[in-house]
Amino acid sequence: MVTRVRFVAGDAGAWTIDEIRAVIGEPLPRAPRLARCEGDEPAPEGRWTLSGVRSHDRYVTRGEKTRLAASPELDRPTARRGVLIPIRKSAAWWALTQDERRAIFEEQSHHIAIGLEYIPAIARRLYHSRDLGEPWDFLTWFEYAPEDSAAFDALLARLRASEEWRHVEREVELRLSR
Amino acid sequence: MVTRVRFVAGDAGAWTIDEIRAVIGEPLPRAPRLARCEGDEPAPEGRWTLSGVRSHDRYVTRGEKTRLAASPELDRPTARRGVLIPIRKSAAWWALTQDERRAIFEEQSHHIAIGLEYIPAIARRLYHSRDLGEPWDFLTWFEYAPEDSAAFDALLARLRASEEWRHVEREVELRLSR
Repeated sequence: MVTRVRFVAGDAGAWTIDEIRAVIGEPLPRAPRLARCEGDEPAPEGRWTLSGVRSHDRYVTRGEKTRLAASPELDRPTARRGVLIPIRKSAAWWALTQDERRAIFEEQSHHIAIGLEYIPAIARRLYHSRDLGEPWDFLTWFEYAPEDSAAFDALLARLRASEEWRHVEREVELRLSR
Repeated sequence: MVTRVRFVAGDAGAWTIDEIRAVIGEPLPRAPRLARCEGDEPAPEGRWTLSGVRSHDRYVTRGEKTRLAASPELDRPTARRGVLIPIRKSAAWWALTQDERRAIFEEQSHHIAIGLEYIPAIARRLYHSRDLGEPWDFLTWFEYAPEDSAAFDALLARLRASEEWRHVEREVELRLSR
């Protein structure tokens, strides 16, 4: 079974929202705090909520999955910085076939290979929202220590410069700390 | 955006439920009629409902997608027989990587190639339920003319004999007419 997640922005939650930045398209409304509630964890009242699920991998090969197993867990005590990036891709992207999407995602854009370079500094968890009828396709969650902030910015800049990102039609970045 | 579907079993709906057969695992409760409600179509009250979404293709290549474009539409006046098959695959299936699932799905089991042999007799629509947290991964809907019933049975038998079907852990078959 899949595990649902709700990101609730409002007056409660472990994370302080330091900045909400519209990267492509409309931003999200401001709020002071964010709660990440997985599974049956009760969610606080909030101003807005983003929903998704932890589900199966869509693009990785066995070799990549083995290398990704070295990814760090969430909630490391040193990881005082968080980033939430909701993304929606274009209708044209979703009309591509699986092999075409994979070719852009990895063979051209090296999405997985780039991410692997930032292990173990950057912890990452991907949630899927598209089949839920949400306005977002993916919600990606990152955690890292303050001293790895420059590395995180470099990771983001490299992905955003990729061919894959030409298919992103909406993207917001929430910078968080705890 | 994805389009949702609800299959509602009860006293209303265009389709008469002629038989509900448990192929693998538990059956579904009996009901006289079935309604297939896509998008914002209002759904009748019912005894039970299965939900899913029409979403993007997960396995087909461009060449296969081009050949599948010859698939017939739903609701042909001659198509008086319908079949709904909800399926759940094993946790081990979902722990496979995309390339491993594709290899079993097509290179070993010829799922798409077999389906293409039954075009244009058999119309088919696939709905995804897994990310919705439903007890099913897929809901597959078929429509055909009564004289193509034997061809449909052959299609089903060939798929169920495939390597892919060893990963199915629950399957129910609803035979319908209108």
